[in-house]
Amino acid sequence: MALVAPVTIQKISGDGLKETPDLLAVEEPLEIRLGFGPVDDRQQRSVAVTMRTPGHDEELAMGFLFTEGIIQRPSDIISCRHCVQDSAKEGNVLRVELHPDVVVDWARLNRNTFTSSSCGLCGKTTIDAVMALTPGPVSSDFLLEPTVLHALPERVRTAQRAFAYTGGIHAAALFNAAGTVLLVREDIGRHNALDKLIGAAFWQNGLPLSQSGIFLSGRIGVELVQKSWMAGVPLLAAVGAPSSLAVQMAQEAGMTLIGFVRDERFNVYSKAERINVHSLLATSL
Amino acid sequence: MALVAPVTIQKISGDGLKETPDLLAVEEPLEIRLGFGPVDDRQQRSVAVTMRTPGHDEELAMGFLFTEGIIQRPSDIISCRHCVQDSAKEGNVLRVELHPDVVVDWARLNRNTFTSSSCGLCGKTTIDAVMALTPGPVSSDFLLEPTVLHALPERVRTAQRAFAYTGGIHAAALFNAAGTVLLVREDIGRHNALDKLIGAAFWQNGLPLSQSGIFLSGRIGVELVQKSWMAGVPLLAAVGAPSSLAVQMAQEAGMTLIGFVRDERFNVYSKAERINVHSLLATSL
Repeated sequence: MALVAPVTIQKISGDGLKETPDLLAVEEPLEIRLGFGPVDDRQQRSVAVTMRTPGHDEELAMGFLFTEGIIQRPSDIISCRHCVQDSAKEGNVLRVELHPDVVVDWARLNRNTFTSSSCGLCGKTTIDAVMALTPGPVSSDFLLEPTVLHALPERVRTAQRAFAYTGGIHAAALFNAAGTVLLVREDIGRHNALDKLIGAAFWQNGLPLSQSGIFLSGRIGVELVQKSWMAGVPLLAAVGAPSSLAVQMAQEAGMTLIGFVRDERFNVYSKAERINVHSLLATSL
Repeated sequence: MALVAPVTIQKISGDGLKETPDLLAVEEPLEIRLGFGPVDDRQQRSVAVTMRTPGHDEELAMGFLFTEGIIQRPSDIISCRHCVQDSAKEGNVLRVELHPDVVVDWARLNRNTFTSSSCGLCGKTTIDAVMALTPGPVSSDFLLEPTVLHALPERVRTAQRAFAYTGGIHAAALFNAAGTVLLVREDIGRHNALDKLIGAAFWQNGLPLSQSGIFLSGRIGVELVQKSWMAGVPLLAAVGAPSSLAVQMAQEAGMTLIGFVRDERFNVYSKAERINVHSLLATSL
């Protein structure tokens, strides 16, 4: 499965028209199916179809199932593999076999009902629903130097395989307090890139990610804060702007939320004490 | 309902730390409910929950229902209004009353089943499913000068109310061959901004949009091409990169697809004959 696909384009600029080969980020649907129930009465159900860039599909499925509150630990999964019966589907169906003891809350799995559950449909309800799935606000003594954040966009871009070729694919990166990029996942969808990253950490028994930060390309919607909160990350930073609800949820989660990380500057929207401003003050003296 | 919300942030840069007021793009859930069925047996069903920026909710709902193939013409709708019974939901539930004669294909409305319908789950299936809803490839003699495209990003940005304040909200704009921006809609989600734009045109009996182009901020995923095809638009242009499937669908649709519209240049991925390259060649002589 390729991350990029070739295409011939017409480039038009002040220099005129030029026909030239180019590369596109691949987008294909992925269906996630669950095999569940007691051994003598196994059932199967489709739980999601997402438009994603192929690759790391197992991690994407695990990250999705974990951040939706369906699975809690690697031993909840018996197997995770692409269906091979139907060649027309080209590796776009992934079947996850759950341990017979895993009880699936189907109401929660329906994304449509997820945000409209229980007492109302507003930002507060959305936050309450996520809070019910987590052990509460993130507790961590993670502390970051501003210079580490300044250097991150360039470090993550270097680690991205597909962006350099297409200019059109998102990245989610895990990094530590020293600024080392531990893991990068790419996808045409921000939420898929983050699911792949969290799924990888989940499968390596690395959750909660209490001594790491996550860096995202693009903007920060509430679902990205939700996923990061589920993974127990103390700090989420991005190149773009957060939404109002993303900031509200980060504040409830006790997560440090940072936006506009570019050109040696950034904005902090919640829990600023995880940024070491003492070093900053010393620099500006 | 506000497009933007106030927040206090910590700005960190080479100049040190500064606490300052800022504005965020508002993100709240919107639930779309359908009232349907014969007059003596009306029923109600929730069809979607989307995280959106409040404002133009009726247009968002109509654009969504039209591009999903549920409604075809304004007379399919009896009324479209926010539920007022539950004040806790803060204007986040919209109820659309359909004409009793409208037959709803519920299987199609489920987004999860939409892309996995019928014969397989791959990009080709996705394209075939959309093709079944449209009258076929877009036919239009729409012709655009390259200089009109060069000027569009700045014109659309000027028309955007919320972007200037937040730096974090997407725009979808309708423009004509003269480069006049006819309509702009904004939302934290690209697909919502486009649904609002198409919903507005739908309600004004303006579909198909055979003599207009659509300009989008951000990247182009397949669902944005799908929605534009449903609206009969001959040309779709964006600031960012298209995906592989977006290009495939645009080629099947006979739509001109243009990416990377910035810095006086752009790339054409399909149906380049709608760009007047003769004027370009004359310029470069």
